[in-house]
Amino acid sequence: MKIIVNVTPKKTVLDPQGAAVGHAMEQLGIKASSDVRVGKTIEFEVSSEDTPAFRVQLDKLCKDLLSNPVIEDYRYTVS
Amino acid sequence: MKIIVNVTPKKTVLDPQGAAVGHAMEQLGIKASSDVRVGKTIEFEVSSEDTPAFRVQLDKLCKDLLSNPVIEDYRYTVS
Repeated sequence: MKIIVNVTPKKTVLDPQGAAVGHAMEQLGIKASSDVRVGKTIEFEVSSEDTPAFRVQLDKLCKDLLSNPVIEDYRYTVS
Repeated sequence: MKIIVNVTPKKTVLDPQGAAVGHAMEQLGIKASSDVRVGKTIEFEVSSEDTPAFRVQLDKLCKDLLSNPVIEDYRYTVS
């Protein structure tokens, strides 16, 4: 099972790295119609089954280790 | 149109950050059956149409600004 976790700064949090990317994109001719947000992506595979207990464990992992819930949102895909 | 670009270190490139996350995950009870890779995710919206010309521009953006093609792979989703 492949897990991809995406961690992005919350909408209300200032993202200077994203703002810098947004400015640089304009120079390259792509104008973003929204804020640009830069986050993290964590990819790994696990051999365990996709059970509700595993999802609980995965949520704990995301909250405790992979993201800072005060300023970041996370979402993951399991495939 | 929402664009999500994922940039990850190439398989052959050492990822110490990913290795550290892998070790920490084991402490939390999730054992990854593969290397853990930590990359970047860049999210933004554009108002232009999804044309082949736009894709070319987007590829150029990914190669020139958002990733280092020597050590990183990128992929994007347009939705």
